[in-house]
Amino acid sequence: MKTTLIIGAGGVSRVVVHKCVQNVDVFGKIVLASRSIGRCEVIKSDLPDADIEITTVDADVTDEVIKLIKSCNADIVINVALPYQDLTIMDACIATKTPYLDTANYEHPDEAKFEYKLQWERDAKFKEAGIMGLLGSGFDPGATNVFCAYAQKHYFDEIHTIDILDCNAGDHGYAFATNFNPEINLREVSAKGRYWENGVWIETEPMEIMQVWDYPEVGPKDSYLLYHEEMESLVKHIKGLKRIRFFMTFGQSYLTHMKCLENVGMLGIEPVEHKGMKIIPMEFLKTLLPDPASLGPRTTGKTNIGIVAEGIKDGVKKKIYIYQVKDHEDCYAETNSQGVSYSTGVPAMIGAKLMLQGKWSGTGVFNMEQMDPDAFMDEMNTQGLPWEIKELEV
Amino acid sequence: MKTTLIIGAGGVSRVVVHKCVQNVDVFGKIVLASRSIGRCEVIKSDLPDADIEITTVDADVTDEVIKLIKSCNADIVINVALPYQDLTIMDACIATKTPYLDTANYEHPDEAKFEYKLQWERDAKFKEAGIMGLLGSGFDPGATNVFCAYAQKHYFDEIHTIDILDCNAGDHGYAFATNFNPEINLREVSAKGRYWENGVWIETEPMEIMQVWDYPEVGPKDSYLLYHEEMESLVKHIKGLKRIRFFMTFGQSYLTHMKCLENVGMLGIEPVEHKGMKIIPMEFLKTLLPDPASLGPRTTGKTNIGIVAEGIKDGVKKKIYIYQVKDHEDCYAETNSQGVSYSTGVPAMIGAKLMLQGKWSGTGVFNMEQMDPDAFMDEMNTQGLPWEIKELEV
Repeated sequence: MKTTLIIGAGGVSRVVVHKCVQNVDVFGKIVLASRSIGRCEVIKSDLPDADIEITTVDADVTDEVIKLIKSCNADIVINVALPYQDLTIMDACIATKTPYLDTANYEHPDEAKFEYKLQWERDAKFKEAGIMGLLGSGFDPGATNVFCAYAQKHYFDEIHTIDILDCNAGDHGYAFATNFNPEINLREVSAKGRYWENGVWIETEPMEIMQVWDYPEVGPKDSYLLYHEEMESLVKHIKGLKRIRFFMTFGQSYLTHMKCLENVGMLGIEPVEHKGMKIIPMEFLKTLLPDPASLGPRTTGKTNIGIVAEGIKDGVKKKIYIYQVKDHEDCYAETNSQGVSYSTGVPAMIGAKLMLQGKWSGTGVFNMEQMDPDAFMDEMNTQGLPWEIKELEV
Repeated sequence: MKTTLIIGAGGVSRVVVHKCVQNVDVFGKIVLASRSIGRCEVIKSDLPDADIEITTVDADVTDEVIKLIKSCNADIVINVALPYQDLTIMDACIATKTPYLDTANYEHPDEAKFEYKLQWERDAKFKEAGIMGLLGSGFDPGATNVFCAYAQKHYFDEIHTIDILDCNAGDHGYAFATNFNPEINLREVSAKGRYWENGVWIETEPMEIMQVWDYPEVGPKDSYLLYHEEMESLVKHIKGLKRIRFFMTFGQSYLTHMKCLENVGMLGIEPVEHKGMKIIPMEFLKTLLPDPASLGPRTTGKTNIGIVAEGIKDGVKKKIYIYQVKDHEDCYAETNSQGVSYSTGVPAMIGAKLMLQGKWSGTGVFNMEQMDPDAFMDEMNTQGLPWEIKELEV
């Protein structure tokens, strides 16, 4: 029987554990490890009949991860910890010759660069160790990369442009709340945008480019051009590409609240002297806002994430839209998690499943679009993320 | 030589002291008293050549005020302290038979009722003492009441409707800041509105009624119907009146910030547990926002406050607009105070001047519109608040 080691015990992990248990014939025994045993216990208690062992690990320390992998003799490591920990966990996999998968690329704790560089640099060591590393097997990156590979394989001789379109139309009923740490939310909306055209990256002002996109089953939504990590690998792997952009929806109310809070200094991360106390405004804001973990059971509405690809097939221009719609309440009913965690966790399970089954294989470090998309697309349809494909007018 | 006692040493007081010194032949010696000697010193230091004596007083305690009035042998008390202190100061004036003037009606510290009731009830005692009490001699109430009396005297046989239109188009260059305590600002925008029609008060939802008014020298501004205290006396004293309303401008940005701050709980006045400390969100917000006192030197733009009266003259329908425009920077250059303080302080000085000169006289408690408006209107033109009058189409 296989042993699957899952590191990290947040919202995405909860979904991964649920889905691995649903596919127990492939994943076998689950070992769930996190800095906090309490978080592991919460997830384990969802699934009292499953074979889940829980333990603690400090994933910042490569040796601790090595010890853990050895002690449970893991057949694969699914990394759904913090992106800061990708490198230490990858190094532990190299040392123990254990296949590796993650859902988000490495970030240095002090600067958010969102670059594959340091992970790609480990390609040779993965080859030497004779193991596979699968990077970014979430939804975006992840399923969106597979959508691009699928379009490439079945619909185009050459793809010229790709727009990735990410919409979360969930409604948690609060005037304002954040799905995760408000500091990271802020970083998203205040960072410069970036897209790729004719071989160069073009920078935009934060939220400078907006288009209204009519998302099937959701409706038209303001969608803002952002930089997003999957573009870095797609420009390498999709041949003939001339432009790629990424758009994410933000509600006007969300943006307005962020702006107002910023204006009054509530997003500050430096301590402020207040009546003899030192208060960090951003931390006090976190105290005032609803706990992100409390949003799951009250979130309604849908997510819709997809890609629009345009190019040439047999000399004729062509445009297709591949997308996946998911209902937050359905996700919660199935896994006690809302749609954003669900859409990330299910592809992580699928990637790991294909690796364990040998359907996706290789030695070295890979991005999703480098693998054959068909098996992954089939799994999406049966594992809770059914997708649609539409031909659009050119 | 007369002695003028000014109680209170905030922004309005600073203007009153400046203007009394400009009219030294009427006001004579100035005694400036406040709970804080430091605030008195700041004002005195503006005017090193003037005859100003400063002292402390706790205006919550009638006996302290009596002692102060007696010790300086005041000919008039100008009350520009907190509205909570109107009654104690009035009682001290009764006890010492000293004329009294204020700029805003009594408010109980725990509930903002904005009622003249408790001040009007002292009418008999003012009569017994043989002294005059002039209530609400600021801009609104104050100059606006005089505008109504002036319209009544010179332009109408009967006024049927009055709209008071208060616009502060000042710009302090901050995305968000409040001219005074944000808690009081909030109370304004979150309180129900109220206007008077055909003998009854009609309540509206907060900010329910908005009209765009084109303020001369400022331009069109969103103006929201609020309750404001001068309406309570005007419905008594303007005969034949059928409707009176009060409108104040609020910028959309100001309202949006207030709403967002309210939504995240930053306007809360109950302590919140944060990292072992107890923090009152509203107080922490005050700490983050610019000090209202710092806005004066950086505020540009104008105020425009006026009244539109409609009625009948010689059987013909008629509509007139009386208004006063003031530039914040001019106010600051003259008195080290911005326009809102200036527009309140100058009418306080004018009311006191007319009382000391005997041009406005009587025994008992009076509202502004009960006095002959002509002398007051003349003084406005020469003391820094020149007004305009326009006939509008009916």
